[in-house]
Amino acid sequence: MPTYKITIAYDGTAYSGWQIQPNGVTIQELFEQAVQTILRKKLGIIGSGRTDAGVHAAGQVAHFKTDAPLDLYRFQHSLNGLLPADIRVLSIEPTLENFHAQYSATGKIYHYHLHLDYVLSPFERYYRWHVREKIDPDLLKISALKFIGTHDFTSFANEAHLGSAARNPVRRMKRLDVISQPGGFRLEFEADGFLYKMVRNIVGMMVDVARGKRKLDEIEDIFATKDRRSAASAAPPQGLFLVKVHYPECFQNLDSGRRLL
Amino acid sequence: MPTYKITIAYDGTAYSGWQIQPNGVTIQELFEQAVQTILRKKLGIIGSGRTDAGVHAAGQVAHFKTDAPLDLYRFQHSLNGLLPADIRVLSIEPTLENFHAQYSATGKIYHYHLHLDYVLSPFERYYRWHVREKIDPDLLKISALKFIGTHDFTSFANEAHLGSAARNPVRRMKRLDVISQPGGFRLEFEADGFLYKMVRNIVGMMVDVARGKRKLDEIEDIFATKDRRSAASAAPPQGLFLVKVHYPECFQNLDSGRRLL
Repeated sequence: MPTYKITIAYDGTAYSGWQIQPNGVTIQELFEQAVQTILRKKLGIIGSGRTDAGVHAAGQVAHFKTDAPLDLYRFQHSLNGLLPADIRVLSIEPTLENFHAQYSATGKIYHYHLHLDYVLSPFERYYRWHVREKIDPDLLKISALKFIGTHDFTSFANEAHLGSAARNPVRRMKRLDVISQPGGFRLEFEADGFLYKMVRNIVGMMVDVARGKRKLDEIEDIFATKDRRSAASAAPPQGLFLVKVHYPECFQNLDSGRRLL
Repeated sequence: MPTYKITIAYDGTAYSGWQIQPNGVTIQELFEQAVQTILRKKLGIIGSGRTDAGVHAAGQVAHFKTDAPLDLYRFQHSLNGLLPADIRVLSIEPTLENFHAQYSATGKIYHYHLHLDYVLSPFERYYRWHVREKIDPDLLKISALKFIGTHDFTSFANEAHLGSAARNPVRRMKRLDVISQPGGFRLEFEADGFLYKMVRNIVGMMVDVARGKRKLDEIEDIFATKDRRSAASAAPPQGLFLVKVHYPECFQNLDSGRRLL
C-alpha cells in the first residue's frame, strides 16, 4: 500500500510522550485522531521510536500507509489545522512501500541542553536542565569520550515498560560532542540507535562526574556491571530533543510533489 | 532613600502585561508581592514603561527604593525563588537616588519577530507573528525607511487607556532594521521613546504594505492625518520583545557587589 514518511516537530511539555498509553495524552494519539478526522478512517501512525513525557522533537519521523488519494500539501495543511500549535507537521513525502519509521532507521541524533548560569531565561524554562552546582567543563568533555564507540549500554538503559521486547544492548555511539552555547552546553549524541532512556542516563552520569558527585573512573566499572542501578540518576526530560532520524539513501527524494519546508 | 535598578526578563504569554490593572494578573503585581513577602513591607516597583498582554521582555528595567539592608545576591535569589519561572530577575544593582526607571530612560530597543514560512515551529509559537500571506521583503525594507528619523507618531499610537496623560507625540526613531532570520525577519526598533502600541502599529502597517494590502505612499499621508484610525491594525503582541532600556552613563557601574549575570 502507498507509504508516506512524515516529519514532525513537537514541544513535549504538555504530553505524556510520543507513544500511545492508557493514561495521559500522547502525540501519537493526537496524530491518529487528526488523520482519522481527515480521512474518515483509522490509520496506524508508526514513529521512529518513543520519546518520553516532556521530551521534545525537532525531527521525529513516522510513517503511515493508505490507498486514499492524497493531496499532500492540503493534507499537511489540514493536519496542522487540527493539531495544537505545539505539534507541527514539517513535511509529508511518499516513500517506498517497505519503509518503516522504526525498523528502517540507521541512526539518530539527540541534543541535550544544559544550563549552568545562575538565572535560567524564562524563554528556555521548558528546554533546559538547570544545573545549579558548579560544573567542571573539562570533566564534562572528558567523560563524553568514555561513551564514544561501540559498547554494551545495558547499565545506561532503563527497562522498557511499554512494548519492545529485550533487544541487543550493543550500540555504536558515533559522536558525543560537548558544544558551548550561551548559558551552558549542548551535548550532541549520534548513534546507530539508542536504548530506552539511554541519553538521559548518560547525561545524568556525565553531569555527576562534572559536578564531583562521581569519579570519572567509575564510568568504565559501571559499563562492566551491566546493571542500570550502578549508574547515576537520569537527567530530567525537558533538556532533551530528538533532532534527526537517519534512513538509507533509497528512501530519500521520492517526493513527487512540492517540498513544503 | 537607597535606590535599586532591577533588570527583568519575562515571557508575557500568561500575563495581562507589565502594569498593575484591576483585571488580570500582571508582572508588576507579582513582583510587588514577592518583594513584600521578602521585606515584609509593601514597596512600589516602577517599570520603564508598560508592556501589553502577551508582549515579552528580555531586558525590562524597574526601580524601587528601600532603606532596608539588602544582600543583593540573596535578594535576587529569593525573588527568583518566589516568582514563577516565566519571570526572572537578571540583575539588581544599587544606583543613584535620582534614578527613575521611566523618566531617566533615554531610549529603548524593541524587537518584533515575523514568521513567514508555511509552518511555524512549536518552539516559537508564542514568540512570532505568523503571517500567512506572501510578503515582498523589499517592500518591508523600504517601508521601514519611512519611519526612521523624527516624526509626530500620533497616527501610530493608541490612546493610553491606563495612566499617563497626553504626552509630546514626537519621537526620534534612530534605527529600524529589517534583519533576516530563519523563517522570516526580525524588525529592530531603536528610538528615544515609544508611544503606546507604537511598535505594533508600525509593524501592522509595514506588513500591510509588504503583503499588498496598503500602498507604500500611504505611510506619509497617514503621518500627516495625525489620526490613529487611518493606519493599519496593530500587529499581534506575541512577536514583540522589549530588549533594552538605555540610561545616561551616570547611572551605570555603581554596583558595589557581585555582578550576577
